[in-house]
Amino acid sequence: MKKNVLIVGAGGVAQVVAHKCAQHNDVLGDIHIASRTLDKCQQIVDSVREKGSLKVAGELQAHALDALDVEATKALIDKTQSQLVINVGSAFINMSVLQACIETGAAYLDTAIHEDPDKICENPPWYANYEWKRKAVCAEKGVTAILGVGFDPGVVNAYAALAVNDYFDSVDAIDIIDINAGSHGKYFATNFDPEINFREFTGRVWSWQNSQWTQNSMFEVKRTDDLPVVGTQTSYMTGHDELHSLSQNLKVPNIRFWMGFGEHYINVFTVLKNLGLLSEQPVRTAEGLEVVPLKVVKAVLPDPSSLAPNYSGKTCIGDLVKGKKGGVDKEVFIYNVADHAEAYQEVGSQGISYTAGVPPVAAAILIANGSWDVQKMVNVEELDPKPFIKLLNEMGLPTRIRDDQGDRALDV
Amino acid sequence: MKKNVLIVGAGGVAQVVAHKCAQHNDVLGDIHIASRTLDKCQQIVDSVREKGSLKVAGELQAHALDALDVEATKALIDKTQSQLVINVGSAFINMSVLQACIETGAAYLDTAIHEDPDKICENPPWYANYEWKRKAVCAEKGVTAILGVGFDPGVVNAYAALAVNDYFDSVDAIDIIDINAGSHGKYFATNFDPEINFREFTGRVWSWQNSQWTQNSMFEVKRTDDLPVVGTQTSYMTGHDELHSLSQNLKVPNIRFWMGFGEHYINVFTVLKNLGLLSEQPVRTAEGLEVVPLKVVKAVLPDPSSLAPNYSGKTCIGDLVKGKKGGVDKEVFIYNVADHAEAYQEVGSQGISYTAGVPPVAAAILIANGSWDVQKMVNVEELDPKPFIKLLNEMGLPTRIRDDQGDRALDV
Repeated sequence: MKKNVLIVGAGGVAQVVAHKCAQHNDVLGDIHIASRTLDKCQQIVDSVREKGSLKVAGELQAHALDALDVEATKALIDKTQSQLVINVGSAFINMSVLQACIETGAAYLDTAIHEDPDKICENPPWYANYEWKRKAVCAEKGVTAILGVGFDPGVVNAYAALAVNDYFDSVDAIDIIDINAGSHGKYFATNFDPEINFREFTGRVWSWQNSQWTQNSMFEVKRTDDLPVVGTQTSYMTGHDELHSLSQNLKVPNIRFWMGFGEHYINVFTVLKNLGLLSEQPVRTAEGLEVVPLKVVKAVLPDPSSLAPNYSGKTCIGDLVKGKKGGVDKEVFIYNVADHAEAYQEVGSQGISYTAGVPPVAAAILIANGSWDVQKMVNVEELDPKPFIKLLNEMGLPTRIRDDQGDRALDV
Repeated sequence: MKKNVLIVGAGGVAQVVAHKCAQHNDVLGDIHIASRTLDKCQQIVDSVREKGSLKVAGELQAHALDALDVEATKALIDKTQSQLVINVGSAFINMSVLQACIETGAAYLDTAIHEDPDKICENPPWYANYEWKRKAVCAEKGVTAILGVGFDPGVVNAYAALAVNDYFDSVDAIDIIDINAGSHGKYFATNFDPEINFREFTGRVWSWQNSQWTQNSMFEVKRTDDLPVVGTQTSYMTGHDELHSLSQNLKVPNIRFWMGFGEHYINVFTVLKNLGLLSEQPVRTAEGLEVVPLKVVKAVLPDPSSLAPNYSGKTCIGDLVKGKKGGVDKEVFIYNVADHAEAYQEVGSQGISYTAGVPPVAAAILIANGSWDVQKMVNVEELDPKPFIKLLNEMGLPTRIRDDQGDRALDV
């Protein structure tokens, strides 16, 4: 039976989600897009129609919604008879959208962890501060909620589960490496919402090492890897959502996240941070206006979705897993390479949005076809990774593996 | 006869002006300090009393004033019977304070050119856009108005006049060099109002070369000099007020201004400028708040007056003048060196504020004693530089000269 989808959010990732839902609307049914700004939803609808992305004739509608308003969100879910809600809006709305799903019975999917606007980098594990407090009620009501099912978190959690389940007897370390070797041609820009982007890096860096939480500061620890396609790349230990579930769900003593940054990004970030311009706390101008500096930085930076038409180059994101198999040391790198220009060609968004937007649609299809319709709240590593990876191979995010037998497409 | 002084403004320079007026209140009479924020004026009053700066018993009062309100300013001039108004407030209030002086007959002094908040770097000569439009009415009413009588503009204009009048038959070039070799110990700070500081550098760089206006961009042209006390220093061609009067009043084909910047300052400035955070034009945040980025940058930076207690090191500002005397090439450097810690010790402000705040008080004394009471509007180079330089030698800003006969105190 087809299941209608409500997409919450209207940024670059929502654009990808809408196109991919349209490409699979024979399985998914009606598609509704809702955000504060109706215009932005309508632009996505127009883009889907222009590219002819709808596989079969079907509903495709834009809606204005304040997703912090649980009653309004419930009403829209009811009105649109949506059974799947893909939340790719701001990180501040997770809990209200989740609540609307719990109360209506719709399945809930998101791609990033909930954040309180006034708090940066809370205590680990982050999921326990918000989402996991609804685990019991989801199980009780039989509501399927799949948390963090973008690329990272999301696909990298599936890669971790696959490695732990199938490739090793014991895993010592999972290093998730996220490299964007693309170029947007601007002086400076972030690839998604600058507010969320910078908030990732202004707090402490939590990592899971020797089976405990470890603190570092941003840009304190780095590594250099020779990676497929993108070549030699430097990345920095960074706090990231997936560490906060993988550390609790897998028996792996070392789980770290590494993000690639160029010197220019680090310089701009360092200047802004040291001046206090990345603060989420309001300051008062000489004229008496209260304003959050980070929101002003966001206002002057390029809209991430505006980068797509001129974005060139590729991303490489994957899990470098080390452990033992048959008493012997083993190392595998399970990864995907995405191309910015190809993504723009297909769905009108750049590669970062593409890698984040395709996986929740794959997950929605897996809920619709029953294989992931678990009727409780889970993180991705708790699910069978194989149907997900298999479907992503078909949907534009092929998985590859590099190990001592070489570099090849991953057949699951 | 003693003349009462109204000081408009309550920043670091106003603090110096108040202390220096107090030290000479046997000549100047009552002292009144007015700005939007009464508290800041009162703090200056308290500081003057704490340091016992009043030479003789006399009035010293704080007032709240919106100096954009001409009628309110006139009323305060009348009420306080002020005959001298030293405007060291924001660069946006010059024309309204000047108007109040013209209508009351009080003498007007300022230290920086008028600016329209919405305009950056207007066409040269800048004085012709605002102040000089009041030249005729000042002459007609016999109102003394001395424009730009801080250090630069101000003292450097007097140095230029002295060189042209007394040391050369013909002058080919005046290069005004402003080096702050001090350290405030902060990650980043500006030495005076960040808004005014950055506005100096975000537009085109106007210079007077080959007897015509020449345009460059900021940090495009630099020079390196071995200077007295501060040693080898790199400075950058910068647009500055004094070029806009010196070029019109002196027959010198090349007049340039050079300001010293460290690489760190340039990096921070470049990042902020390229991101659009130094813009004086409002942007709109995602939440719909209209805000001027530059005012937010100002809000997060340290208050310049907070730097004074820990400021160490020295400034060196002077005129490098090249020309001919008796048919022979000649070069002189006329300059002052000020010490941040000594300035703080004496008047509670750092050296930059000290060099800007002492000269208008010297000029006020010269008006009070008649030698500069010219009853018209002038720039400093139109006045006899000798009594000014002589008085500054006594007031804490001694002038020195370096030429082929060595480096020595300048005796005028």
